[in-house]
Amino acid sequence: MNNKGLTKLFLVASILCLSVMSQAQNHPGLILTKSGVEEIRTSLGSVPLFDQTLRDVKEEIDAEITTGIYTPIPKDYSGGYTHERHKRNFIVAQKAGVLFQILQDEKYAKYVRDMLFQYEAMYKDLPVHPQTRSYARGKLFWQCLNDSNWLVFMSQAYDTIYEWLSPNERQQLENNLFRPFADFISLENPQFYNRIHNHSTWGNAAVGMLGLVLDDEELIERALYGIENDGLEAGLKDNDGGFIKVEGQKAGFLANLEEPFSPDGYFTEGPYYQRYAMYPFLIFALAMHNKKPELAVLEHKNGVLMKAVTALLNLSDADGEFFLLNDAQKGMSYKSRELVTAVDIAYYYGGFNPQLLDVAKAQNQVTLDQAGLAVAKDLHSGKAHTFIKKSVNLSDGPDGNQGGVSVIRYGNEDLSLVFKYTAHGLSHGHYDKLSFSLFEHGNEVLQDYGLVRFVNIEQKGGGNYLKENNTWAKQTVAHNTLVQNETSHFNGDYATGSQYHSFLHFYNDDNENIQIVSAKETNAYPGTEFHRTMAMIKHHDFEKPFVLDLLKVSSKRKNQYDLPFYYLGQMIDTNFDYQSPQQLQALGKSNGYQHLYLEGKGSAADDNIQFTWLGNHRYYTLTSVVDQADELLLTRLGANDPKFNLRRDAGFMLRRKNTSNTVFASIIEPHGSYSPVTELSLNSNSNVDRINVVRDDKHYTAVDIKTVNGGQMLLIVANTDANDSKSHRIKISNKTYKWQGPFFLKVN
Amino acid sequence: MNNKGLTKLFLVASILCLSVMSQAQNHPGLILTKSGVEEIRTSLGSVPLFDQTLRDVKEEIDAEITTGIYTPIPKDYSGGYTHERHKRNFIVAQKAGVLFQILQDEKYAKYVRDMLFQYEAMYKDLPVHPQTRSYARGKLFWQCLNDSNWLVFMSQAYDTIYEWLSPNERQQLENNLFRPFADFISLENPQFYNRIHNHSTWGNAAVGMLGLVLDDEELIERALYGIENDGLEAGLKDNDGGFIKVEGQKAGFLANLEEPFSPDGYFTEGPYYQRYAMYPFLIFALAMHNKKPELAVLEHKNGVLMKAVTALLNLSDADGEFFLLNDAQKGMSYKSRELVTAVDIAYYYGGFNPQLLDVAKAQNQVTLDQAGLAVAKDLHSGKAHTFIKKSVNLSDGPDGNQGGVSVIRYGNEDLSLVFKYTAHGLSHGHYDKLSFSLFEHGNEVLQDYGLVRFVNIEQKGGGNYLKENNTWAKQTVAHNTLVQNETSHFNGDYATGSQYHSFLHFYNDDNENIQIVSAKETNAYPGTEFHRTMAMIKHHDFEKPFVLDLLKVSSKRKNQYDLPFYYLGQMIDTNFDYQSPQQLQALGKSNGYQHLYLEGKGSAADDNIQFTWLGNHRYYTLTSVVDQADELLLTRLGANDPKFNLRRDAGFMLRRKNTSNTVFASIIEPHGSYSPVTELSLNSNSNVDRINVVRDDKHYTAVDIKTVNGGQMLLIVANTDANDSKSHRIKISNKTYKWQGPFFLKVN
Repeated sequence: MNNKGLTKLFLVASILCLSVMSQAQNHPGLILTKSGVEEIRTSLGSVPLFDQTLRDVKEEIDAEITTGIYTPIPKDYSGGYTHERHKRNFIVAQKAGVLFQILQDEKYAKYVRDMLFQYEAMYKDLPVHPQTRSYARGKLFWQCLNDSNWLVFMSQAYDTIYEWLSPNERQQLENNLFRPFADFISLENPQFYNRIHNHSTWGNAAVGMLGLVLDDEELIERALYGIENDGLEAGLKDNDGGFIKVEGQKAGFLANLEEPFSPDGYFTEGPYYQRYAMYPFLIFALAMHNKKPELAVLEHKNGVLMKAVTALLNLSDADGEFFLLNDAQKGMSYKSRELVTAVDIAYYYGGFNPQLLDVAKAQNQVTLDQAGLAVAKDLHSGKAHTFIKKSVNLSDGPDGNQGGVSVIRYGNEDLSLVFKYTAHGLSHGHYDKLSFSLFEHGNEVLQDYGLVRFVNIEQKGGGNYLKENNTWAKQTVAHNTLVQNETSHFNGDYATGSQYHSFLHFYNDDNENIQIVSAKETNAYPGTEFHRTMAMIKHHDFEKPFVLDLLKVSSKRKNQYDLPFYYLGQMIDTNFDYQSPQQLQALGKSNGYQHLYLEGKGSAADDNIQFTWLGNHRYYTLTSVVDQADELLLTRLGANDPKFNLRRDAGFMLRRKNTSNTVFASIIEPHGSYSPVTELSLNSNSNVDRINVVRDDKHYTAVDIKTVNGGQMLLIVANTDANDSKSHRIKISNKTYKWQGPFFLKVN
Repeated sequence: MNNKGLTKLFLVASILCLSVMSQAQNHPGLILTKSGVEEIRTSLGSVPLFDQTLRDVKEEIDAEITTGIYTPIPKDYSGGYTHERHKRNFIVAQKAGVLFQILQDEKYAKYVRDMLFQYEAMYKDLPVHPQTRSYARGKLFWQCLNDSNWLVFMSQAYDTIYEWLSPNERQQLENNLFRPFADFISLENPQFYNRIHNHSTWGNAAVGMLGLVLDDEELIERALYGIENDGLEAGLKDNDGGFIKVEGQKAGFLANLEEPFSPDGYFTEGPYYQRYAMYPFLIFALAMHNKKPELAVLEHKNGVLMKAVTALLNLSDADGEFFLLNDAQKGMSYKSRELVTAVDIAYYYGGFNPQLLDVAKAQNQVTLDQAGLAVAKDLHSGKAHTFIKKSVNLSDGPDGNQGGVSVIRYGNEDLSLVFKYTAHGLSHGHYDKLSFSLFEHGNEVLQDYGLVRFVNIEQKGGGNYLKENNTWAKQTVAHNTLVQNETSHFNGDYATGSQYHSFLHFYNDDNENIQIVSAKETNAYPGTEFHRTMAMIKHHDFEKPFVLDLLKVSSKRKNQYDLPFYYLGQMIDTNFDYQSPQQLQALGKSNGYQHLYLEGKGSAADDNIQFTWLGNHRYYTLTSVVDQADELLLTRLGANDPKFNLRRDAGFMLRRKNTSNTVFASIIEPHGSYSPVTELSLNSNSNVDRINVVRDDKHYTAVDIKTVNGGQMLLIVANTDANDSKSHRIKISNKTYKWQGPFFLKVN
């Protein structure tokens, strides 16, 4: 080689080296930034909640470091050792990386490096995971989803030690571990990566996070816009029955952000999965904000991510537990790890809403970054305002025109009614059009069953969805809504259900004494329309507000209609007679009925039935208008459940046979209390004397309610015209009523 | 009349007047005393918990005064309006009287006076209560018991306004209301008054309290010693099946104090009724202490009343809820009104135990008297010590020789085992010899069902005992103990069961790593002896302590033995196969079996079965040695329960047929946890590899336990000689073991 050649080589090497160096000096830059770390380090010791979180995390990670690093050969489903160990590893590594930055103690960097190199040594020759249930098997885990979780966290860990590693070390990790890992979950699994689904969101974010660490534009493009030619056929489904590809579908992170969120921030799969999805959405959007603010990912779709945090917090009960819409595990709450991230980011990047500080206080931890520091600082300086949840009506669908969900609340969440008139909710949706659930002070009164899955409990089917999720939890009869002819909505067919949504007739929460929502469903049963209006009413004769439920059904044919109420607690009294069978048998053969035992069957002697139960030390009475031919069924879950996957929960079901058009008019009334300590039973009787349907035709439905104390109410709903300015004038029992707007309440 | 006559009359009148005056100047003197009131009044404003309680009570009573005074004509059972109103009245009047003394505001005295005169006007002509269920119907209430409650409280109220009333007013109240009232519940109802029973304790205290207000020696005598010639026949029973009179029975308050309490302070009916009975015991003993200290009622029977408070507090779980021994409603706790009185009295008159202050703190209120003031003062000055409950072994029976109850605790109530080997427990006893229940951190792990009664809930049988209390709750199969041939202990016969008790073999809590109790029952099934040894063991291979349960049965005949375990929670896994029936049928026809559905039936492929469940977010595994012929039954409560009076609780039952002598050897092992928020499932598998019975004969039973981690334990129990100093030497598998005392544990 001549001198010129050498010079040229030197120049090229220098440029390469400079490029590597400039790249190297960008780290950390995803979530932690150089200036953020600086600010954190100068604040240490003066911000209690931040300091406390840091202490807790340090203690946790120090204990892990003592335990040693384990990267077992993948073998188990979730709940099993190898699954849980690898899951723990990426969580621990991310935290250790943060500690290295904040405490500048090399032991944390070494720990992350050593773990990554153990993975590097293993990954090169790692086959696909031995468990076969998933439509997209991962390598470390049984599904690519969990592999993507790993990369989302490990990219952050890598970012924190990037500059501390030698270029050779980085090259080795990137070539043997990170790049093949990212390619495996994307290019090699397009059926996982290129969907509109929370799975893909994780995959996209994983690839994107790595792309940002590596400053690799190709990976970032792949994250934002998906794989261009994925070769997938439209109509493919995954192992949960969800669509993999539909005609004309976009892909990538931005499409996943556009599709499932409505403009109000409602996530179509429901809050349980929103909680899960929020982490990759926010963490990658934040990383983009830090690295490529010009793309404005955090502000995409009118700042829907910030609205989504607010929407999600509003979809929780008084204890912060999420309402059960679609597949959802009970007990998941805004105290989860993902919501700590969401709340801190929403506070810092979303306008410093002081009510979020109140949630952060309940969470009692912050993220160890600039956002968490800001939250802890402002909490410490007393800036928090009480977090108040009001009634809300949230639209569903990318453009907000695919139905929605209403939460009607009274007082300080004394009573919260959740009314669902959404689209199907992708593969996690249930066949439960116009269903509802009811909460008093954070306790379920009338429940939504949730999912049938023991998440991460290995003994229960590897912690995955159990078959009763399909045979029970998704079926219509598992919900507090109408079942026609013992068949689920859309005949339980996902492809059909996915095409439709219910639609709002009207919603009004302007007056605390009557808050009301009304929606219609016209597709669940071809030829049948049902229209449900639910109101929360406060009346001076009642100690607490009550719920009025008007379910109007219109059909071209005569059908059997079942309307179940899944009460939680102990039956206390009924005003009707019933017989209890000597042997318990299943109520039906399919559509969920095969899981219900019939514990009692009665009929009404009167045109009103009352059913009183005691739950969570409070009394509740259901009063319903009935025909004497109606069957009153007492049900118990648990039939055909040989593995004991279902809870033995009770239900009360109204069955009306051989009817085309009808109204189910009911009052759900919370009253009184019982204390096992004082043994005082207060106000244990209903205050409803009678409810009558005084008019029901195409245009109007009206009910009259009389109270035990002699009070009276008349509610009229306009069934066809919901215009606020529309004037109505009708006669009922020779009295004329005039009003404007879709409903009218007269109180005596 | 001459002068002499007039002088004489004047003298007599003066003496009478002086006597009335001197009597009048003794009031208040029962619970509140003149000097006590003085001390309270000078302390007002400086003792936070006292001031707070006073504020709360004032607010409560002021609201009542505004509402007005209602003394409706008696009509209802408990839970009904008239019952609850009269009950509320006496509670309110007592508090109003206290407020009058402390605040010296006459409105409270007027309120009490007016209420008493409403009663006076009504009582004169009041017939016996119209409801007929009780063996001793009251006048204001359906049973004399509640009338006695009334008088216990009203005597205190009367005492507080005694001096404020005119002599005429007093005379009118005493002649028309108080004296006839006391006579009605005693002289006119000896079958109620002259028993050894908590009913009579209330009756005795009621008469005695009035006697002390009136300084009436006859009434005081009647209270202390009962009615001399009651004319009752031995063998009479009440409406709950309890004996009214047995041969040679004493009567009165002192006899009631001597009989049901053991020298350790255990109350034979169990803690739920002890809680109820403590109030009249303590309040009358305290009134006697204040009025007639020379009789030393508060110190009677070696100060058993003070020991009883300690015993009662020790019979509660980590949340202060009482263990369910005999008839008992779940949720009753030391936060009840009665225990506030008990704790404050025990503190002030029983030696100022600083741990009691910790209980008072949890109660968050004090009594408005000297005792309560002392508690509040000492709490305020920081004298409280943490209330620590240790393992205890309490004898039953007046002389402490009728069996007993052991509570074995580990750590800070991490695990609490309640083992019952008592006498029958009077009319509230259950047929549950050698049964047990288990708690972790205040949550039930293996439950005692409690009672079948919705106390004070009118709709449920007037709030009284329901028939399922006899057909289910009292039956042996409702408990975690042995049932022979599907028949309850003593064939469910109260007269027989009342003659016997189990007896202690040994108890030892000296070593935290093995705490152990062993007791025998030889009368429940004639010809059969059963001997149960339960140990709580901490071993280094286990995250938490576990319970070892050895139930040795020896019979002259071959029998069927059932051993149920009433777990609370969701079954997670079994290592045996079972079949689930298509229809649920009752397991039997009587003795409680008619209330159990059979949900599954299996058999073991191995000589160890494992059954794992998840309850309260924690895992538990039962490991048992079985024969392959054993039936493994999965049960569910609720058969033959048309009124829905029973909870639908689960059970697991071992059934061994056609056997005379056998050992049921089981391990109950708490392990791991599950969080619905983090969704982490930790340590969900048992750490027991195997348990074997390696020796079982008349003299010794030995089990060998192997852990999954390779650890090993050998426990040997000496079945015949429980002497601590006895030396033993036996061979098992050619190895010789030598030790001293009734048990031996070898750990590897």
